[in-house]
Amino acid sequence: MIKVPEGFLLSGMHCGIKKKKLDLGLIACKDGAAGIGLFTRNVNPSYSVTISKKHIKNTVKAVIVNSGNANCFTDKKDLGNTLKACESLARYLNIKKENVLICSTGIIGKRLPFFKINRSIPALCANLGRRYKEFAGSILTTDNFEKVSFKEVKLKDSEIKILGFCKGSGMIHPNLATMLSFILTDVKMNKSLLRKIFSKAVGKSFNSISVDRCMSTNDTVLMLSSSKKSGLEDSRSINKFQEALEYVCRDLAKMIVKDAEGSTKFIELEVEGAKTEKEAKAAFQSIAGSLIFKAAMYGGNPNWGRIISTLGQVNIKVREDKFEVKASSLHKRNVKIRVNMGRGKFNWRGWFSDISPEYVKINAGHN
Amino acid sequence: MIKVPEGFLLSGMHCGIKKKKLDLGLIACKDGAAGIGLFTRNVNPSYSVTISKKHIKNTVKAVIVNSGNANCFTDKKDLGNTLKACESLARYLNIKKENVLICSTGIIGKRLPFFKINRSIPALCANLGRRYKEFAGSILTTDNFEKVSFKEVKLKDSEIKILGFCKGSGMIHPNLATMLSFILTDVKMNKSLLRKIFSKAVGKSFNSISVDRCMSTNDTVLMLSSSKKSGLEDSRSINKFQEALEYVCRDLAKMIVKDAEGSTKFIELEVEGAKTEKEAKAAFQSIAGSLIFKAAMYGGNPNWGRIISTLGQVNIKVREDKFEVKASSLHKRNVKIRVNMGRGKFNWRGWFSDISPEYVKINAGHN
Repeated sequence: MIKVPEGFLLSGMHCGIKKKKLDLGLIACKDGAAGIGLFTRNVNPSYSVTISKKHIKNTVKAVIVNSGNANCFTDKKDLGNTLKACESLARYLNIKKENVLICSTGIIGKRLPFFKINRSIPALCANLGRRYKEFAGSILTTDNFEKVSFKEVKLKDSEIKILGFCKGSGMIHPNLATMLSFILTDVKMNKSLLRKIFSKAVGKSFNSISVDRCMSTNDTVLMLSSSKKSGLEDSRSINKFQEALEYVCRDLAKMIVKDAEGSTKFIELEVEGAKTEKEAKAAFQSIAGSLIFKAAMYGGNPNWGRIISTLGQVNIKVREDKFEVKASSLHKRNVKIRVNMGRGKFNWRGWFSDISPEYVKINAGHN
Repeated sequence: MIKVPEGFLLSGMHCGIKKKKLDLGLIACKDGAAGIGLFTRNVNPSYSVTISKKHIKNTVKAVIVNSGNANCFTDKKDLGNTLKACESLARYLNIKKENVLICSTGIIGKRLPFFKINRSIPALCANLGRRYKEFAGSILTTDNFEKVSFKEVKLKDSEIKILGFCKGSGMIHPNLATMLSFILTDVKMNKSLLRKIFSKAVGKSFNSISVDRCMSTNDTVLMLSSSKKSGLEDSRSINKFQEALEYVCRDLAKMIVKDAEGSTKFIELEVEGAKTEKEAKAAFQSIAGSLIFKAAMYGGNPNWGRIISTLGQVNIKVREDKFEVKASSLHKRNVKIRVNMGRGKFNWRGWFSDISPEYVKINAGHN
């Protein structure tokens, strides 16, 4: 059963950016939450990313999310409009605009109709509750299903909740890009420790998947902690919390791959025998990102020569007598592949999708 | 009319690596040629690349080329076999094995049947002549047409000839990778100057195209100069020769893009307004290499948002009020696009293909 962590309220609604589906969501935490944000490194970010990067330094009291429009690359006026939307929401919730984050996902280069957002704020706030379903729906673009993961973990006297949401990272529809993810927890934890644990979990999950090598203008992963529950005093508790957080992040990341547009396969790839962890990760990313290897996976074609070629492109030299590939049947939807490079002791595991003719057709379409 | 430059003889034949088509070619220059080689930076290169990288330091008297097998990543014995093939040819031509280069293209990880090559060497040598057609055919894998370009240029008293061959760079068929190119000329020129001019020409041609971002285990571009004709005394002559060489390289590079597997469009992209030449080239490569932009081109979809996103991924920040895109009709086979980034004065021009559902199907197939 999914439970919303203490200190948070959620809502989601249709405000009119999309034709029919939910397109506006809200996370409220009126007593404030510690926020950690990992934002796209794309140097042409959306106006929403620009504002949220500033505001995340403060206590977070609300996060407003729209889908259907990326709020990116129209003109500088929209940076002002973005701030005004934060202001409208802040006024209504009786907080400061500096405590509001904003996230957007959708088409690049089209004006976001801010009046639709602003006029919907009263209804959005009025609906706040444990409405995780509505929120989960409101952040989607062309995803085929809502992506929610939950884990409860008992630490001494407290039941800590971790609730995560995300939307797909694939370039699912023309101009619709972006991976957004929101992880809510009620644990009380030193912020720098939380940042460390969260970054590690993201590295092993959202940064260990590959759909189409794109880093969008809007990618954002947020973690909010309301500090309502204590219990993280010793290293054993910290480890338990870390495991649970990694579970939620991995669960969400795998859902993104499973929902990758036009994909027919879900592939788990374990790269073994790297000299360093960094090398193991680089090997994973090069194989999982290789267009021709993805196409081979679509065809169920055990084309290991392409792995050799791909590794050589990222400077990983493998010896003929030490290289080994093992795989489950390539003709099923779920595939497991182990690649042993025979260079050392480090491993990396991640997930990726194949690429199908359908993917090209979807991405060739007009919006 | 195509003429073979002085000092060179060519041949091509079927030796049995492929079922029916020509699969073994030879360039002979018995008086020796100065050779310049640009080889793949892939750290898992073919055995042929390993040998040729050593031998290119010597005078080049013969180049043997096989298609249908990459001669890569089987086991170290094949490095010995590769050298033996050079030796067999050398013995037959009465030269040293150190003066022989070898190039291969085809499937990775399958043993090359060297006995088929060795037994064919007498016939291959017996056929030497001005047989540029046979040679052009012998280096192809699944290319749809032979790629030959020729230019004659008058410098003072000499008619200098430049004759170029290549095969496609697309991952045309499972495991079949590789771009090979051979440029022959009879000009007499200081080798370090020739290297400089050639590197520049390659940068503006073979390094300015994009099919599928792959750098194969076998990529090789060779220039051989027999020094039979003088005439390059002044800078005007040098410039004239350079122009002609760039023409031939560009012509071949464009043929590769035109023959890219499963492509439906030939796109010329001019990136303008970069801060440096390096930045202009990086911008070209990021756009031309973007999977989702290539898919948009397939659909004739003017999806400029994807250009913004792609540039942002390679650290190029563009201003909304300075960015400009102009394009010819996206629904014709030949498309021209100009992207002005509004950051500075440097430009870069290159060529790329779209990606179609057909591309995925071809690359999904079994060999």
